[in-house]
Amino acid sequence: MRYDFGSDNTAGMALSAIEGLVRANKGFARAYGADEVTARAADQIRQRLDADAEVRFVFSGTAANAIALSMLAQPYEAVLAHHAAHICTDETGAPGFFGHGVGLIGLPGFSGKIDPLALQAQLGEPEVGHRQPPAALSLTQATEYGSVYTEEELRHLIEPAKALGYGVHMDGARLTNAVAAGFDLKDIPRLGVDVLVFGGAKAGANCAEAIVLFDKNLARRLDNRLKQAGQTSSKTRLLSGPMLGLLESGDWESGGAHANLMAQRLAAGIAGRSPFVLAHPVEANAVFVRMPPEAHARLNEMGWACYAFDDGSVRFVCSWATQEAAVDELIEAVAGLG
Amino acid sequence: MRYDFGSDNTAGMALSAIEGLVRANKGFARAYGADEVTARAADQIRQRLDADAEVRFVFSGTAANAIALSMLAQPYEAVLAHHAAHICTDETGAPGFFGHGVGLIGLPGFSGKIDPLALQAQLGEPEVGHRQPPAALSLTQATEYGSVYTEEELRHLIEPAKALGYGVHMDGARLTNAVAAGFDLKDIPRLGVDVLVFGGAKAGANCAEAIVLFDKNLARRLDNRLKQAGQTSSKTRLLSGPMLGLLESGDWESGGAHANLMAQRLAAGIAGRSPFVLAHPVEANAVFVRMPPEAHARLNEMGWACYAFDDGSVRFVCSWATQEAAVDELIEAVAGLG
Amino acid sequence: MRYDFGSDNTAGMALSAIEGLVRANKGFARAYGADEVTARAADQIRQRLDADAEVRFVFSGTAANAIALSMLAQPYEAVLAHHAAHICTDETGAPGFFGHGVGLIGLPGFSGKIDPLALQAQLGEPEVGHRQPPAALSLTQATEYGSVYTEEELRHLIEPAKALGYGVHMDGARLTNAVAAGFDLKDIPRLGVDVLVFGGAKAGANCAEAIVLFDKNLARRLDNRLKQAGQTSSKTRLLSGPMLGLLESGDWESGGAHANLMAQRLAAGIAGRSPFVLAHPVEANAVFVRMPPEAHARLNEMGWACYAFDDGSVRFVCSWATQEAAVDELIEAVAGLG
Amino acid sequence: MRYDFGSDNTAGMALSAIEGLVRANKGFARAYGADEVTARAADQIRQRLDADAEVRFVFSGTAANAIALSMLAQPYEAVLAHHAAHICTDETGAPGFFGHGVGLIGLPGFSGKIDPLALQAQLGEPEVGHRQPPAALSLTQATEYGSVYTEEELRHLIEPAKALGYGVHMDGARLTNAVAAGFDLKDIPRLGVDVLVFGGAKAGANCAEAIVLFDKNLARRLDNRLKQAGQTSSKTRLLSGPMLGLLESGDWESGGAHANLMAQRLAAGIAGRSPFVLAHPVEANAVFVRMPPEAHARLNEMGWACYAFDDGSVRFVCSWATQEAAVDELIEAVAGLG
Repeated sequence: MRYDFGSDNTAGMALSAIEGLVRANKGFARAYGADEVTARAADQIRQRLDADAEVRFVFSGTAANAIALSMLAQPYEAVLAHHAAHICTDETGAPGFFGHGVGLIGLPGFSGKIDPLALQAQLGEPEVGHRQPPAALSLTQATEYGSVYTEEELRHLIEPAKALGYGVHMDGARLTNAVAAGFDLKDIPRLGVDVLVFGGAKAGANCAEAIVLFDKNLARRLDNRLKQAGQTSSKTRLLSGPMLGLLESGDWESGGAHANLMAQRLAAGIAGRSPFVLAHPVEANAVFVRMPPEAHARLNEMGWACYAFDDGSVRFVCSWATQEAAVDELIEAVAGLG
Repeated sequence: MRYDFGSDNTAGMALSAIEGLVRANKGFARAYGADEVTARAADQIRQRLDADAEVRFVFSGTAANAIALSMLAQPYEAVLAHHAAHICTDETGAPGFFGHGVGLIGLPGFSGKIDPLALQAQLGEPEVGHRQPPAALSLTQATEYGSVYTEEELRHLIEPAKALGYGVHMDGARLTNAVAAGFDLKDIPRLGVDVLVFGGAKAGANCAEAIVLFDKNLARRLDNRLKQAGQTSSKTRLLSGPMLGLLESGDWESGGAHANLMAQRLAAGIAGRSPFVLAHPVEANAVFVRMPPEAHARLNEMGWACYAFDDGSVRFVCSWATQEAAVDELIEAVAGLG
Repeated sequence: MRYDFGSDNTAGMALSAIEGLVRANKGFARAYGADEVTARAADQIRQRLDADAEVRFVFSGTAANAIALSMLAQPYEAVLAHHAAHICTDETGAPGFFGHGVGLIGLPGFSGKIDPLALQAQLGEPEVGHRQPPAALSLTQATEYGSVYTEEELRHLIEPAKALGYGVHMDGARLTNAVAAGFDLKDIPRLGVDVLVFGGAKAGANCAEAIVLFDKNLARRLDNRLKQAGQTSSKTRLLSGPMLGLLESGDWESGGAHANLMAQRLAAGIAGRSPFVLAHPVEANAVFVRMPPEAHARLNEMGWACYAFDDGSVRFVCSWATQEAAVDELIEAVAGLG
Repeated sequence: MRYDFGSDNTAGMALSAIEGLVRANKGFARAYGADEVTARAADQIRQRLDADAEVRFVFSGTAANAIALSMLAQPYEAVLAHHAAHICTDETGAPGFFGHGVGLIGLPGFSGKIDPLALQAQLGEPEVGHRQPPAALSLTQATEYGSVYTEEELRHLIEPAKALGYGVHMDGARLTNAVAAGFDLKDIPRLGVDVLVFGGAKAGANCAEAIVLFDKNLARRLDNRLKQAGQTSSKTRLLSGPMLGLLESGDWESGGAHANLMAQRLAAGIAGRSPFVLAHPVEANAVFVRMPPEAHARLNEMGWACYAFDDGSVRFVCSWATQEAAVDELIEAVAGLG
């Protein structure tokens, strides 16, 4: 099987991340995040966001999201999210586990973006004691379906939620791809996001994400919280070092840009050379193709790992590591299925 | 500050672990643990234990322990452990978080080893509805105080617990140091341990531990359990690769042996050249020294990071990375305090 | 406002329940369920079910259901239930709270009964690590929409679930109404239900339900479980006494029969004398009427408490306490809306 | 067995509580706490406390305490309490269950009262990431050992805790006995207690306690919280009605006074007529007697239910229902053991 397009996580670490790891690894350093490499990596993230935020490096995006949500919603409350959001469909109920039963309310919307009218309708629902009323809004940038919210679209979702006192979480597992599509990171604090998960793994780091808290009140006893939740690394520099390598080199951005470019090339090739249509606009690093199950099965038989998604389309994901030649080979294969 | 002796986690990754990581990182691979490197690393562990066990690689020893305990005890039950065990004192209540309120009952015993008479007394307690009755026994090998259980000592603790149907967990964060002290890994399944946390981080890996389940029934839906708990790595080969490097090279063992040797050297030096006495037998990689607060403070001022432990003694930890010269320098420093 | 038809819980305790309470209240008795009244009430329930089951009296149906589900499904697993089931819509996420994040998967089906084809489709879904796979099936008898499963319908749902090793829970908050509709209580163990919540409050008791465990293995340390979950009564006889009063007098059954009869009368009156149609078959104690919002509002203005349900119809509930005259008055009122 | 002195919960409901129940039970009433009886009972409690507090009636003191603590401490934080407090020893780990792993730190002190110096020492402990730092102080009035805090004693415990921003919980399961000993209920809000559990069951109600929140911020979405936690009664008037009966009749106070008087009589009799000494000052409704195990066993054989407590002494509890003749009979029995 060729896993090139199976998922964002089939690529390893980028070279600059490995270099960052090796550099950070030298000698002895303070454990549990109190080292200098970690401080520098956090600074890199703060600079990009232009915000004096609390930054911590954790292992898992699933845990990062779930912990973030547990800061914003109590067990007897719920979180609003797109029904196809990773927190709703791909994290084995982690928000409920870390949030002690916190609820998720799935909202509709095309191509992974929450429909603002659906949000408004939900926000207008009267509260009753026997349901979990929403307390937070979760947004994914770029979305699960490879679309990217504009600043205006985000504003129209965040403002009404904030007006009701809700907290706002952003799942930025593919934030680099959103940036490559023109999204300005500085909009995140400007728009009022409270907690951001700043993606590392899909951007070429090892398994490392940063939790970014713009509201310092949320950061009270954050280290205790993360330790208890199994997301404190004893050798933090091994998480922050690769991130620092990506960020200082600019590879965090250029890797995302490359991934998006490869997705554009793949989309154009499939749209132009095969009978299959694209299921969603290609704004980030993923291409969703409507194809009959037989065609999908044929591709798998030819050795291409790719998966049917919840909407029935087949997903191909590009990353910082995707090679042009592989894209062209895949286009050829898909074209040959027609 | 010199962090050489501050903790097992102030050293980075061993060379063979870095090499294992770089090798594993090549090309694309299946995500979420279904890759070949991960399979090989699991095999290495199974061979050492001589057992057909389920093996998973996770990020955090705290989480690994807490998840293991949640397999053995229900929220309304408790876990028996030495009162100085890491799960009792250093994991911010993680067992209660992952185990939804599961209780911990601390048992006494010299130098971190559970006193078998104290265990017997506890096992003989009548059950009542308004307390959390024990359901599991947790053992640490090597212990928090640098001692190492013999096979016989373990047997005298495990047998009565198993006789009552309790599950048995072993925290093997410093398992390599126990092995270097003569402990036979194959005794772990032979003695009836149900879940082992096989230490990686302190042995020279990155933040990686293996959960080893000897009872396949406990492994039911294990991947769902780990994913929900934020301990599933998308790029698992980045956890298993370094572990594979350590295990295939034999560095997992030789690093532990080196650490123990350095601890012996340090202990002998302090005992022989300073007025301070050792607080515990030095059987693994840590040296505990009884010294007045002023002496401890003076060492810190001289730039040596070292910490007072729960029993009031000052702990010095050696690792695979500890250098003989540094040991001698430290001995000199301690001797000079007298 | 007249609350006669607002909910099953607007009636108080039946006379025989009060009498049972007063009788049980005499003198001193052992606390925490070890009293004789409690033993007799449990016997009454066991006799009706013809099963040697463990029986405990708890305060809250919400808690009883959630605790029952926590016995059958782990946090990383899910429970299958009708999407309109009380556990899904009216318990503020209690299953996730008591079950530490356990998931709920809502299934469709007319009038509150799970569609067996929808269940089959769900049972056929492949398991993946990033979702919560089902481990239990929850059934409500009588259902939220006033329908009653036949033995055969239950068998067609329970058998395929049991064949996969799932646990089965039955929410019997309105069990007395199912019995009055012809359901045989002895079918519950015969069909393989593992945990039953035997309803008391809606049947005329105070806030008291019984948890009935047919599998004694599930009852291990049950008293610890209930105590921790806040569902152990210190003065248990005050819960079991009213239940005993209802059961020994036969009022548990006759009250349900009366409630169903009143619902039939109400349904017939509305169907015959008003322009509004019934939304669901009236097999138990509730009548659902399709009426325009204006008509509903007008009823409320006239002083009749009644609520719109999830399907948009307006619900009227009868109980052991519903009076024929009140039914006729309500029919008159509804007829006058036309 | 004679359960007269076994526990506070071996007595049933007082007459005024039964009357209150019967009165409240009449006719139909709004479910889920929105009824008039509940409003009046809450007013009675607010008047006694002279505070505009939120009041809710729940079933279980264990749950009430645990829910209260979950308002004051996060899962990664801890609660300070006397090591013999009910929450520490008799609630099967409920605080950890409802609080998702929240920690308990037991403090010493004579006769169930926290030693202010021990509290000060604990408050001075430096915070570290790998421990659960305290966030709340829990006080029991009257204490488990039948002593009653003075206003000044409480102030010396509450002030330093509040100065650090801690929340304060009071377990008032035996509050009526503290009042009978001279404690002024109005001191509770004056001293800065945040959440009070106002005892009903031991005072002669059915299983009913009131959660009283002096800080309205803590009450946000309280009904959702209680519903999720299984502590919302559908027929609330059946909880509040008995409480109202006790409060309006003054029996809440006079029952506590009677219980204390009986305890004084029992204590004087035992001290004067038997060779055994009292283990603790008798300020409320319990008498603790140091007696050899043989004497204790003999009493049990004679049919007197009484239990050895954690400190080894034997506890006798009086209640509103304790009869003078029974006290005298027990004194006789104890005297005869000498």
